[in-house]
Amino acid sequence: MISIPIQNFYPDDASICFGCGRNNAHGLHIQTFWTGEEGISDFRPQPYHTGWPGYVYGGLLASLIDCHSIGTAIAAMYQAEGRAPDSEPQIRCVTGTLHVVYLQPTPIEAGIHLRTRIKSLTGRKAVLETVLTANERECVRAEVIAVRVKEG
Amino acid sequence: MISIPIQNFYPDDASICFGCGRNNAHGLHIQTFWTGEEGISDFRPQPYHTGWPGYVYGGLLASLIDCHSIGTAIAAMYQAEGRAPDSEPQIRCVTGTLHVVYLQPTPIEAGIHLRTRIKSLTGRKAVLETVLTANERECVRAEVIAVRVKEG
Repeated sequence: MISIPIQNFYPDDASICFGCGRNNAHGLHIQTFWTGEEGISDFRPQPYHTGWPGYVYGGLLASLIDCHSIGTAIAAMYQAEGRAPDSEPQIRCVTGTLHVVYLQPTPIEAGIHLRTRIKSLTGRKAVLETVLTANERECVRAEVIAVRVKEG
Repeated sequence: MISIPIQNFYPDDASICFGCGRNNAHGLHIQTFWTGEEGISDFRPQPYHTGWPGYVYGGLLASLIDCHSIGTAIAAMYQAEGRAPDSEPQIRCVTGTLHVVYLQPTPIEAGIHLRTRIKSLTGRKAVLETVLTANERECVRAEVIAVRVKEG
């Protein structure tokens, strides 16, 4: 388990993402911890992150899945190349597709926990599957395709 | 074309959604205008709604698609029942699935335009297809399944 979130290794100029940028004062500051096998993320929603009363806004859940999946893909790609996430060249990915299945409403008073595993990693493309739980109940399942951006 | 956004007909207590709630002071205030055939939404991102520098955050785009698709589904359901959106019983929907395909980065300096059409409307379920453009270029395509919540 790496104790530093993968987003902390993103270069300063790219760390302004509303979802996961450490330098975005208005953002969500989503963090991804890579265990060597999967990505883990925890998020505590604010009361204003509501959808229908009592439940977390689905767009926020999609946002968590988006950034956390990309973070997990990047961490896995560094590992696949046998090098540390602060080594060059930097790896960047973008989201190709985001598919979210809302299984049941996510209670807003609970913390949100995401576990993301690599389904496949081939060439510049990673397919990631996320299980999102709150109060230890599975609320959302998602699949993201992450695409590595060419350097330069 | 209805000149009032469908979200303005949502009941006060349900209008706290971070995406589209008119009573959420922190929210995005997404609005859906129903033409009678499709839902239209326009959104001007803030500079802090960035993903990678220069482009809109994908999670924000997913959020726009989520609320706007639900709004479009609700408007279409009222129309299918031949009644106005301020009539009883109120129609509410939740998102069953959200599938977003990012075709190209969405420039952050442009306004975002969404057009959502009804692919099917059967029973409590609507399937909606959205085309998202910026600077008149198609950047994102999405499909949402909206599920009507039973009254009471």
